[in-house]
Amino acid sequence: MLEVCLLGTAAAQPLPDRALCSATLRCAGRRILFDCGEGTQVSLRREHISPVKIDLIALTHYHGDHIFGLPGLLQSMVLQERRDPLWITGPEGLEEAMAPVLSLAGELSFPLKLLPLPAEGLALAALHPAWPAGARLRAIPTRHRVPSQGYVFTLARPGRFDVAAARALGVPQTDWSRLQAGKPVSLGGAWILPEQVIGPERPGLKLVFSGDTAACPALEEAAAGADLLIHEATYADEEEKAALYGHSTFVQAGQLAARAGVKRLWLCHFSQTIGEPEQALPLAQARFPAAECGFDGLCTTLVFRDPTEND
Amino acid sequence: MLEVCLLGTAAAQPLPDRALCSATLRCAGRRILFDCGEGTQVSLRREHISPVKIDLIALTHYHGDHIFGLPGLLQSMVLQERRDPLWITGPEGLEEAMAPVLSLAGELSFPLKLLPLPAEGLALAALHPAWPAGARLRAIPTRHRVPSQGYVFTLARPGRFDVAAARALGVPQTDWSRLQAGKPVSLGGAWILPEQVIGPERPGLKLVFSGDTAACPALEEAAAGADLLIHEATYADEEEKAALYGHSTFVQAGQLAARAGVKRLWLCHFSQTIGEPEQALPLAQARFPAAECGFDGLCTTLVFRDPTEND
Repeated sequence: MLEVCLLGTAAAQPLPDRALCSATLRCAGRRILFDCGEGTQVSLRREHISPVKIDLIALTHYHGDHIFGLPGLLQSMVLQERRDPLWITGPEGLEEAMAPVLSLAGELSFPLKLLPLPAEGLALAALHPAWPAGARLRAIPTRHRVPSQGYVFTLARPGRFDVAAARALGVPQTDWSRLQAGKPVSLGGAWILPEQVIGPERPGLKLVFSGDTAACPALEEAAAGADLLIHEATYADEEEKAALYGHSTFVQAGQLAARAGVKRLWLCHFSQTIGEPEQALPLAQARFPAAECGFDGLCTTLVFRDPTEND
Repeated sequence: MLEVCLLGTAAAQPLPDRALCSATLRCAGRRILFDCGEGTQVSLRREHISPVKIDLIALTHYHGDHIFGLPGLLQSMVLQERRDPLWITGPEGLEEAMAPVLSLAGELSFPLKLLPLPAEGLALAALHPAWPAGARLRAIPTRHRVPSQGYVFTLARPGRFDVAAARALGVPQTDWSRLQAGKPVSLGGAWILPEQVIGPERPGLKLVFSGDTAACPALEEAAAGADLLIHEATYADEEEKAALYGHSTFVQAGQLAARAGVKRLWLCHFSQTIGEPEQALPLAQARFPAAECGFDGLCTTLVFRDPTEND
């Protein structure tokens, strides 16, 4: 089970009713924060989200409207007496971008670790043991004016544990959890392997966060079949302007979602030049009927297809 | 005439309904901004205040909750195509404190000038010609845990121009404005001095902004007779805690206002530990009956005593 919440949906300059673009996901009580523009800590507070449960801040790039909330968030974590380590990841240039942020934030009460994501992605259980074994985050290079990346969070779901098979093999019940965790069990001199008692992997959950990007084939490929795609839609249908600034339109976001076959699409990162984003929504819905306009505080829970199997 | 607006009234951490402590004053269309915590630019927008009219940002000290809004505000000024110079003043350490801020903000579209205030104060007309000749800002050393200062803004009002005297002396009407501006006029080989046609200086306006400070005799002296004192009141009546952290209580702020004989007192910079600030207000009002609890968006206009003389 995965909770997702949009904390901000504006581009470039924050508005009283639209903070700068940011989102958070929650899984097994732990959190990832995507981007952190000025005011993100206020949005977290409005949603009653404690910053101390954030294990990882995943930055899509280092433009000010995506990182200027970091010094204040870090200081608030100190005031809230955070002790757990905090990881921050982002594209090329992470260390240089973070230097003035850390200089402003001053002394911290917790270890802060800069962590470029490995190409194969990161098993989040490495950050905090509460993360499910199948929770993984990887970065996808996107197409902005500066080094940038989007993120794909996946929650794999192992196959069903075959209780009858385990009993038939004589595996004591105390060893079942070890097999469920993917580890072999020794039984009377022989090894019982997980695949002997666990069925084929079942469909998990996939969430994709685009960050700032022009229409991006790599992101489209990575988003295939996603349960939710959060995609920027800075402009309505001004494709030339979008290309110039490395952004997408409502039209392009709808097209990408349709081609990727995602289940849901949330649009965000609206330029103030387009007026009310809802008025541009039909441009996306003409390509992807389920497209929704993001707003600050839009939240959802993504569940496995068989709801009895969610935890 | 002087417009004053509280942009934020919280201490340490911003809340959805209380931004970090900040205020602005407007005079003859130009502005000073006092402090700039994270989110100040959103408060400005909520009050429909354009950042490009701000000539001077006056910082009381360099704790994060008073300066982390600067990088975003500066970048928004760039997006709004500011060209006019911007001055920033503050206590000792201004240059060091601003270095990471400017590093984050990146290239600006306008000159940014760091300006320690001279001891005698600064005539604001030196920053922009629209400021009245009598508008002046000076800093008062305050008592916080780090170098800190409060601010006194004064708007002097020259004496009344004596039309009858000017006519009796034979000064042509085209020279009156020169005399009103305090400059002598040559007339048939002799000099007419301003004091020959201008009465004694009349009471002007005085606004005092405390910033973060423990009870401060220098500030009390400087606030004598102020039209409005904006004073921090971090705690209700916990004087030991206030002394420890270099802050004031509702009680102390009320006492100081009463002793200084100010006309109005606005309290601000409320710690979240005190709950609803209104519940602590009687502690201040017992010492200074006109004390008011500040809230985001509290605004007033200060006028000369004879309203026909306001401009």
